[in-house]
Amino acid sequence: MRSHYCGDLRASHIGEEVKLCGWVHRRRDHGGVIFLDVRDREGIAQVVFDPDEQAAFKLADKVRSEYVISIVGKVRARPEGSSNPDMATGEIEVLGKQIEILNQAETPPFPLDEYSAVGEDVRLKYRFLDLRRPEMQNKLRFRSKVTSIIRNFLDENGFLDIETPILTRATPEGARDYLVPSRVHPGSFYALPQSPQLFKQLLMVSGFDRYYQIAKCFRDEDLRADRQPEFTQIDIETSFMNEEDIMSMTEKMVRQLFSNLLDIDLGEFPRMTYAEAMERFGSDRPDLRIPLELTSIDDLMQSVEFKVFNGPANDPKGRVVALKAPGGASLSRKQIDDYGKYVSIYGAKGLAWIKVNAINDGINGLQSPILKFIPEETIQALMKRLDAKDGDIIFFGADKAKVVNESIGALRVKLGEDLNLIERPWAPLWVIDFPMFEENGKGGWTALHHPFTSPACSPEALKANPDTALSRAYDMVLNGTELGGGSIRIHDQQMQESVFEVLGLGEEELKDKFGFLLDALKYGCPPHGGLAFGLDRLVMLMTETSSIREVIAFPKTQTASCVMTQAPSEVDTQQLHELNIRIRKHI
Amino acid sequence: MRSHYCGDLRASHIGEEVKLCGWVHRRRDHGGVIFLDVRDREGIAQVVFDPDEQAAFKLADKVRSEYVISIVGKVRARPEGSSNPDMATGEIEVLGKQIEILNQAETPPFPLDEYSAVGEDVRLKYRFLDLRRPEMQNKLRFRSKVTSIIRNFLDENGFLDIETPILTRATPEGARDYLVPSRVHPGSFYALPQSPQLFKQLLMVSGFDRYYQIAKCFRDEDLRADRQPEFTQIDIETSFMNEEDIMSMTEKMVRQLFSNLLDIDLGEFPRMTYAEAMERFGSDRPDLRIPLELTSIDDLMQSVEFKVFNGPANDPKGRVVALKAPGGASLSRKQIDDYGKYVSIYGAKGLAWIKVNAINDGINGLQSPILKFIPEETIQALMKRLDAKDGDIIFFGADKAKVVNESIGALRVKLGEDLNLIERPWAPLWVIDFPMFEENGKGGWTALHHPFTSPACSPEALKANPDTALSRAYDMVLNGTELGGGSIRIHDQQMQESVFEVLGLGEEELKDKFGFLLDALKYGCPPHGGLAFGLDRLVMLMTETSSIREVIAFPKTQTASCVMTQAPSEVDTQQLHELNIRIRKHI
Repeated sequence: MRSHYCGDLRASHIGEEVKLCGWVHRRRDHGGVIFLDVRDREGIAQVVFDPDEQAAFKLADKVRSEYVISIVGKVRARPEGSSNPDMATGEIEVLGKQIEILNQAETPPFPLDEYSAVGEDVRLKYRFLDLRRPEMQNKLRFRSKVTSIIRNFLDENGFLDIETPILTRATPEGARDYLVPSRVHPGSFYALPQSPQLFKQLLMVSGFDRYYQIAKCFRDEDLRADRQPEFTQIDIETSFMNEEDIMSMTEKMVRQLFSNLLDIDLGEFPRMTYAEAMERFGSDRPDLRIPLELTSIDDLMQSVEFKVFNGPANDPKGRVVALKAPGGASLSRKQIDDYGKYVSIYGAKGLAWIKVNAINDGINGLQSPILKFIPEETIQALMKRLDAKDGDIIFFGADKAKVVNESIGALRVKLGEDLNLIERPWAPLWVIDFPMFEENGKGGWTALHHPFTSPACSPEALKANPDTALSRAYDMVLNGTELGGGSIRIHDQQMQESVFEVLGLGEEELKDKFGFLLDALKYGCPPHGGLAFGLDRLVMLMTETSSIREVIAFPKTQTASCVMTQAPSEVDTQQLHELNIRIRKHI
Repeated sequence: MRSHYCGDLRASHIGEEVKLCGWVHRRRDHGGVIFLDVRDREGIAQVVFDPDEQAAFKLADKVRSEYVISIVGKVRARPEGSSNPDMATGEIEVLGKQIEILNQAETPPFPLDEYSAVGEDVRLKYRFLDLRRPEMQNKLRFRSKVTSIIRNFLDENGFLDIETPILTRATPEGARDYLVPSRVHPGSFYALPQSPQLFKQLLMVSGFDRYYQIAKCFRDEDLRADRQPEFTQIDIETSFMNEEDIMSMTEKMVRQLFSNLLDIDLGEFPRMTYAEAMERFGSDRPDLRIPLELTSIDDLMQSVEFKVFNGPANDPKGRVVALKAPGGASLSRKQIDDYGKYVSIYGAKGLAWIKVNAINDGINGLQSPILKFIPEETIQALMKRLDAKDGDIIFFGADKAKVVNESIGALRVKLGEDLNLIERPWAPLWVIDFPMFEENGKGGWTALHHPFTSPACSPEALKANPDTALSRAYDMVLNGTELGGGSIRIHDQQMQESVFEVLGLGEEELKDKFGFLLDALKYGCPPHGGLAFGLDRLVMLMTETSSIREVIAFPKTQTASCVMTQAPSEVDTQQLHELNIRIRKHI
């Protein structure tokens, strides 16, 4: 029905007769002539109807915005001085000879080029119109290119695309499952997978050697800006490869992706241990675009009398840090107060600070409410350690290490953005040497990744010192976002049992939930490992999108609804009857 | 951890030192030497350990079947006369120098090369072992290649891979939905999609122009050999293309697939109307590999006194057909009786037959229990119409047309197989010109495809004659299996309303279920159409597999269970509580 896409027409087509299909993007009458901007997936072409072609002119006069039309016409250069350098097709226009109205359109509930004035709910209700916006077209198109490039890379590297079930058993990620009542087995439920983790490990046991899947995953959790009930994972697993091999291959994949789609060379990814990342950035996914760092000053503060500092400095679980921000001395009291409120979100009880006005004037060149609590020599030692300069501000965090890391780590990123300190657009890295466990708050241990992650030590060492045991996990981090996480998995039955022992999982629970995996370990499980990337986040980062809903065609709202289809919705009692369930009435 | 895959070693590697990883497929001691067949994804290599390498020899002596090992050794030619032409690696062997046991293995619950002796349930319980069989490896690998080729074809043709939701609203296919209770919206449920039909139409309204997705679909129906609760669809939709364009593009895709993977040229697909397919083959997915055809003989039988024939021959909804099978005159009475039982599955009340022993002997050359009921001249006319020859058997169907078509259509296929009449391995075709509606048994109409299929006539003609209205649907059929089905969809609001009117759908129901689609039609919906292929069936056909469970990594049994993970399973009361449902107790 078309000879060309509208957006593909160029000066090289001048003189050709073309047939176009698309939507009326804009219609103007000017000097007795009708101009239609006709839009399709590839862009917009200007089509001109003059009264010489009487029938076409009359029809063109009837069309309105968003009508679907088909036109036949001849490409010509735009008249001298009227070409539009902002449009890819701006050098040419089409002199329309015929026009057919393929479908009419009512006035849209919101103008496509003024969408931002309407609420997101209206746009989601009319998602089919919202998706006509070039921005949304570009984002979903970009997403399609991302998956295509990744698939080709993995295909070329011998990975097999194998589908795993959506109707399955509860998986070990630990978030809340979506359940599906079984009609055939009354009282039983399928769970939607939180990831294909166990299945991909079984595929390794089966000898498929290299597996991948771009897989839908599900978590019934309360939603934040970057969360959706269903999300998509680039899921990878290999046998007989160590962490070095896996990191190198997937790093190559991501570098190729950025190079092909954004013409950006990410360079080699630096590696950083979890311990170093926490020490220097207070985060296991540090944003290395920002040159600020946390400096530990526990040693300096252990003997000061200022309790806010000396308490945490002397607490084995406490931490005292300084964060120096160049240029921050010009921050107003109000701005500093706002940062105080910001860190309180992360549990910080206050935010001490020192402004460096004139470093050479010693203590007199500094400005701070806390100077009087700290001996001058300590201040001097601090300034020296931080290499403080005129115009700096120094913030302090002193609390349990967890609170300090989270609050000052977040402050670091916020300051970096607010003070325009971001040094480069992309900063990838690998974080490695994660702890195997973290305290579960009930005197026991919980797995930092998942219980199938291989420890980097022997089973005996693991059981003896669960607090210091490291795992063979690795996360790929980009600009402060975790792009993907993975690990070498446990292939040894004894090791797996040791991990379960530390986690305090009962034999009954184990057998019930993971019996088949434990079985599989008995029958010749190869060494294996893998990685999973969050596709939605990857596309968000690459397209500089802040809301996950902008990179998904039909997303859910923050209450997990689709306002367009009205899902979820009520269903017939008969359906519930067949499924052997009933709705619980609230009393 | 490896230098080569086991199965990739060839004579060209002789002299090279290699490192292999894999499973011990077989272990033999012979002449003081240990032979290990080491298996990986690519195949098997023979590794020899002799006592000269003492340490390795001792370790090699310890390994058992399905142990996971890593070996280092040197490739050499097998000794004169001991090469194995049945093995890809049969010209060489590896002289082992080092061996490492990466994991041990208990004796598998069934020997991999004698799997057929154990029940399918055992194989499914230990699916991770069952999948080690080369046959299963090859099938899933083949499936991965199929999707890769299809994706590349569609990518090259400008199709965008766009994901549609899994947690959604009930879709219009009409089978039973799987439901997912919502925690956030008590008493409401998501449905898992039976297809992405409505979403892909909305993507056309949005102007994406060409969409595809390899999409999981769900139907909670009772399972047959070729059904699964979740199945995979190659889902395609385009705008501004007519049926000719869509059929030609997707035919090209399937031909390319067969050519690339099986080196088979399917040739151009013939087209056949639904009416012709039913007339000649009693089926809208005729298996054209089989040269048998149904011949209508209503006219001949209208005036015979034999009620079994004259009743249906005079009934406007009846049909009388003959099916001639060359060579069938040698069938035994027992065999004919069995065919009688076979057609009874499809509702036939009997199976009349005539054997042609000597056509030139007239009525005396025939053998049949029904000869006495039918005048000789009718028999003669019948023999002439059928061009009967010595050795033929002629079967008859006489009943409601539906019963005749289904029973004799099925008999045709069975006879074709039993009598070895299959003429060629592959017989594709397009079936077109489907009826728009079929009777719903309650005096009304139901859509033969789905209610969004475009009729081939005007809204007025549709409402005036729903019984004869044709649709713009098309099915791709291969060897008697529907590979894919599609249609041009309705893009005109008035047409859509007319279809709903014929179907007798109430306004309330419409608005509730499809309100968003009807809305979308108002705002500039382009002409569009598409097609969906069943990936599982496609792979089954291409790999000559009779059970759908053999082309899916982790399938469900016929009671929709996974015997490996024990899904579906019982869940905590607390979980149900959060979901606001309870299990209905049977009284």
